[in-house]
Amino acid sequence: MPVRQLRNDPDEFVAEALRGLQGAHPELVHCQPDPAYVLRAQPARRAKVALVSGGGSGHEPLHTGFVGAGMLDAAVPGAVFASPTAFQIAAAIRASDRGHGVLLIVKNYTGDVLNFSIAAELVADEGIEVGTVLVDDDLATEPAAEGGPGRRGTAAVVAVEKICGAAAERGATLAELVALGRRVVDSARTMALALAACTQPGQDRPSFDLPADEVEFGVGIHGEHGVGRRPFALARELVPQLAEPVVRALGLASGASVLAIVNGLGATHALELSVVHQELSDYLNGLGVEVARSLVGPYVTALDMRGCSVTLLRADAELIELWDAPVRTPALTW
Amino acid sequence: MPVRQLRNDPDEFVAEALRGLQGAHPELVHCQPDPAYVLRAQPARRAKVALVSGGGSGHEPLHTGFVGAGMLDAAVPGAVFASPTAFQIAAAIRASDRGHGVLLIVKNYTGDVLNFSIAAELVADEGIEVGTVLVDDDLATEPAAEGGPGRRGTAAVVAVEKICGAAAERGATLAELVALGRRVVDSARTMALALAACTQPGQDRPSFDLPADEVEFGVGIHGEHGVGRRPFALARELVPQLAEPVVRALGLASGASVLAIVNGLGATHALELSVVHQELSDYLNGLGVEVARSLVGPYVTALDMRGCSVTLLRADAELIELWDAPVRTPALTW
Repeated sequence: MPVRQLRNDPDEFVAEALRGLQGAHPELVHCQPDPAYVLRAQPARRAKVALVSGGGSGHEPLHTGFVGAGMLDAAVPGAVFASPTAFQIAAAIRASDRGHGVLLIVKNYTGDVLNFSIAAELVADEGIEVGTVLVDDDLATEPAAEGGPGRRGTAAVVAVEKICGAAAERGATLAELVALGRRVVDSARTMALALAACTQPGQDRPSFDLPADEVEFGVGIHGEHGVGRRPFALARELVPQLAEPVVRALGLASGASVLAIVNGLGATHALELSVVHQELSDYLNGLGVEVARSLVGPYVTALDMRGCSVTLLRADAELIELWDAPVRTPALTW
Repeated sequence: MPVRQLRNDPDEFVAEALRGLQGAHPELVHCQPDPAYVLRAQPARRAKVALVSGGGSGHEPLHTGFVGAGMLDAAVPGAVFASPTAFQIAAAIRASDRGHGVLLIVKNYTGDVLNFSIAAELVADEGIEVGTVLVDDDLATEPAAEGGPGRRGTAAVVAVEKICGAAAERGATLAELVALGRRVVDSARTMALALAACTQPGQDRPSFDLPADEVEFGVGIHGEHGVGRRPFALARELVPQLAEPVVRALGLASGASVLAIVNGLGATHALELSVVHQELSDYLNGLGVEVARSLVGPYVTALDMRGCSVTLLRADAELIELWDAPVRTPALTW
């Protein structure tokens, strides 16, 4: 059976969803239609550094669902799986700046890096101070050598937005936020697998097919192929295969403490994600690694992809305290 | 391709997911393994009426994800799509009672009604005061005549848990909570549609197939058939077909105000749910009906079903204030 969606014209999908987000949360967000960006409905009481992120749509709640107190000041959505324009990004930066500078949180994709960088130059000429944190946590795309686009940015971006968002509310400067965000990125790595690919609006077939006895390892969040296929297996066998390279890349050893994100890629049920978390905890506890805090749910999706990603972030007292700080955004509130 | 899940033995799916929930949110919930129920990790500061709900699993975050301050004191999960036992329910009631009585919130299914009722009798003999709110919002099962099981309970249960949970925190008595819960139930109706059925753990095919040009109207949350098939269409045509019978059943007219729940049934993307909310708002505004508050997301799922339900609840100042009260549970928090 072809895959179908609840939508109207695929070309209006994102614009109509933004109207829906606005209608559902008028107290939290203000969605500008053209150029499209999403702003906090009520600016922070105290002027502070503004946080702006964005990227292709199809990953909701990222980024638009994370606009609000304690997280982003603005999010800039592109079309599905396509970067927003520099013009959109610059408009969002101008609208969020309150004279203390703007932190740009950018996932490492060629289009996003280019367009955020052009936007940063545009507004710098207007006197707005801008700093950038590039998020590149996806181990599946670890380059074998220097050069090339490097690792993709995936679910660690949620931690960067949350932790830097909390620090900004407490009055951190732009330079401090850039350093903090880079520290989070350096401490975090992610690995993902898919049981089934996603279907783009306007298509009626998933972007790739998988044999019944295989899973796609190292998938990204755009329906692209992963880095290899492995036998389908029980969660207790698959989850350590996700966690092991992350543990190795971060050099986690007994006594370490981590923040864990078990992220659903779109069509993965909450029961499944809870089982994945259980297996992840068991695996890490077996290594003597403590899971200090966890986030379990669909936070960075790839439309209706079935599967999950596991992100670990080396924790310390400062990061845990910022992780725990209050937040109120469309996706993170009643 | 057969549908696959991230899990181990299907018979251990729910038990392992409870361990995962516990591991992810030790500060919020305490999951008892046998008999299985989920308790608030920290009881309310002030002794109050306890709220206990439950039912078959497969609908997560309902109910286990709604245990915490401002909502449930305990949730009792059955196996997937099967009622918990009276023994489990009675154990959860005993563990939650603090001498002010216990409100049972029960979705209208034969097994749940029977087992909650046996549990209520068991604990009443032990001197625990119990009141019950039966939730029966699903218009698809509106009986043509008296008798029979009546309407099923679906997404309105979230509103009952939230609103009664807030009132309980403020010190409402058991009698007041029973009356409030019944008022919410009387004010709420729901209608659902599916674009694709769900697949039960251990099966590799959805519970029914749909032709590419049809949707299943009036589906429940257990993979059962709906009440009829209609042509697949754009959201702007499908959403009014969901909303119209709800508006009619509640007698909503120009000037009315509603709380709206746009609920994803499991595998429906956030972009789709936002578009559904947009179409729902447009439809209601066209009738002069105001959407006072909205909840948009996967709150009452049917495993990996594709589709959504629309619940409307006639709003007044008291219900809106309780709806807005703080809540902190695994599914409704960072």
